Amino acid sequence: MTSSEHDHAGSDQAGSVTLLGLGLMGHALAGTLLAAGHPTTVWNRSTDKGTDLISRGARRADSAGEAITAGSLVIVCITDNNAVRELVRPLAAELRGRTLINLTSGSSSEARDLSDWAAQHEIAYLDGAILAAPTGIGTYEAAILYSGDKDAFDQHNPTLRKLATPTFLGNDPGLAALHDVAVLGMMWSILNAFLHAAALLQSAGVSATALTPVLQGGIATTAGWLAGYAEQIDTGVFPGDDSTIATHLAAMTHLVDESSAHRVSTDLPLQIKAVADRAIAEGLGQSGYAAMISQFRSPE
Amino acid sequence: MTSSEHDHAGSDQAGSVTLLGLGLMGHALAGTLLAAGHPTTVWNRSTDKGTDLISRGARRADSAGEAITAGSLVIVCITDNNAVRELVRPLAAELRGRTLINLTSGSSSEARDLSDWAAQHEIAYLDGAILAAPTGIGTYEAAILYSGDKDAFDQHNPTLRKLATPTFLGNDPGLAALHDVAVLGMMWSILNAFLHAAALLQSAGVSATALTPVLQGGIATTAGWLAGYAEQIDTGVFPGDDSTIATHLAAMTHLVDESSAHRVSTDLPLQIKAVADRAIAEGLGQSGYAAMISQFRSPE
Ligand SMILES: NC(=O)c1ccc[n+]([C@@H]2O[C@H](COP(=O)([O-])OP(=O)(O)OC[C@H]3O[C@@H](n4cnc5c(N)ncnc54)[C@H](OP(=O)(O)O)[C@@H]3O)[C@@H](O)[C@H]2O)c1
Ligand SMILES: NC(=O)c1ccc[n+]([C@@H]2O[C@H](COP(=O)([O-])OP(=O)(O)OC[C@H]3O[C@@H](n4cnc5c(N)ncnc54)[C@H](OP(=O)(O)O)[C@@H]3O)[C@@H](O)[C@H]2O)c1
Repeated sequence: MTSSEHDHAGSDQAGSVTLLGLGLMGHALAGTLLAAGHPTTVWNRSTDKGTDLISRGARRADSAGEAITAGSLVIVCITDNNAVRELVRPLAAELRGRTLINLTSGSSSEARDLSDWAAQHEIAYLDGAILAAPTGIGTYEAAILYSGDKDAFDQHNPTLRKLATPTFLGNDPGLAALHDVAVLGMMWSILNAFLHAAALLQSAGVSATALTPVLQGGIATTAGWLAGYAEQIDTGVFPGDDSTIATHLAAMTHLVDESSAHRVSTDLPLQIKAVADRAIAEGLGQSGYAAMISQFRSPE
Repeated sequence: MTSSEHDHAGSDQAGSVTLLGLGLMGHALAGTLLAAGHPTTVWNRSTDKGTDLISRGARRADSAGEAITAGSLVIVCITDNNAVRELVRPLAAELRGRTLINLTSGSSSEARDLSDWAAQHEIAYLDGAILAAPTGIGTYEAAILYSGDKDAFDQHNPTLRKLATPTFLGNDPGLAALHDVAVLGMMWSILNAFLHAAALLQSAGVSATALTPVLQGGIATTAGWLAGYAEQIDTGVFPGDDSTIATHLAAMTHLVDESSAHRVSTDLPLQIKAVADRAIAEGLGQSGYAAMISQFRSPE
């Protein structure tokens, strides 16, 4: 991204930013802000990190408190939210009246707790979840999900857009963390189905490379159904006119049988089948697939 | 698809075709062939099916044997391969010298058995797996995977392209069935991750419709990694430079915790985590995700 692409997008184009934490991710964030022309103040607990950022124009603060008072926007990205709490609690006075954006990964309840604490101290708080590796920072393909203070998001949007494609999810500060784990769950599910399929086809002499385009076709087709299933979930009506859970169950049995015949683990197929078995036992056999959302809610 | 798009593609453009079985899928196949101008002979066990096809120009045969001898290409699509065996075994003489394409869903070993039987009787055999609903037949979005006799596939390719986008996977007649269950396993994995995510976000007041585009972004990103992971699987080298299994495990714990905190089933997250736990116990913590293919092979 070049900063000229954003010249029309807002008023804090190259406002000063403070970055607390220069680990792999904090370093990438600071480097991207510097390259975009933001006066950038950095601080890291141990002082061996970020020397290259200083030589590219970043200012190093001697303490986190000094770093915070250098600008109006403070981004923190360190190991976890226990570390964030430890770091920011003694600095409420310095943070008062400023915006704190927390790009540290954590749980939704941690985000809500930090947000409550920030509100008590008149600190605008935005929680963020980075869906990218450090090398992706500064590209549109990278995504960062945000939730919490909408005014802070709007005000700093031009800056946030330089880091990655930003999405605001709502005022509940826990939403970024919740969406983050949901996306990760999808990612692991796809990767595990891919590894299972690769193991199965390997037993028939097919390379993973040859298998991949066939699976990618299936992924694209399935992704195309989700909006329709989402509407069914939101309305609570699950017609079985394309195919019923009972029809799916028959094919699931094939997947179990092929896996054991080819000496591939049946764990994944059996779990898939168990969900459908339970749904059918509850009388959902003639409903569409999405009716099985009931199986993913805890009983009572 | 219009037949003019295929005018250059081969020589049997509108050769006569026999369709055995006029259930939901067989009916869609026959209707598409008729619409494309193929002289089409149909047969169904019970004679109440396919009356509309006759009025559109199909010829109804009084027996399966009579249907077979009406043309050189025979497509069978009935409930399962037990029914196929029962149907075709007494008709080896009629099928001799002809091509039999079996679009019935089944296992790879059933396909191999039928192929062996066909070879003994000088019948060209092609096994197919339909990755589409009946309403998709006749569109490019629909896919049919084929394996078995490559000459038969090449010869009838112009006809097969009218039914759906055809892919030939190899001479092993079991490959279509194996790829079929692999794609279905991917489909169910995505749908289950979607339902789990929808249940989780519902607990925070987020609709499935609002969640869907965020998940679709994650799906597209993950699909983009598969070719790289496939290469790692095929070469057996699993560098952990983007992220290690140990790093993933930490985030998997978040998914488990958020799920139980929000009263959503932990079955799916716990299975995901169990795979990584086992891999780390085997010393793969610093390898990349695809090294976990070892967890999907049965021991010994
Ligand atoms: N790397 C990725 O691919 C990625 C992707 C998405 C999200 N994230 C998230 O981004 C955050 C940072 O990850 P990273 O990859 O940058 O980690 P990292 O390379 O391990 O760096 C950790 C940073 O946290 C600092 N730190 C730890 N405890 C601290 C404390 N009590 N007080 C002050 N500073 C403390 C460390 O300071 P010292 O140098 O003094 O130890 C270091 O700067 C994590 O929450 C991670 O989950 C990372
Ligand atoms: N529908 C789909 O969405 C879909 C998608 C992909 C693949 N498929 C596969 O396509 C195949 C057919 O599915 P379908 O949806 O068309 O099923 P269907 O509507 O239930 O029709 C079954 C057909 O099989 C015939 N049949 C059953 N046993 C027979 C026997 N012993 N001898 C002769 N004919 C027999 C039936 O004849 P009668 O009319 O005499 O009972 C009927 O024509 C299945 O293998 C299915 O898995 C279907």
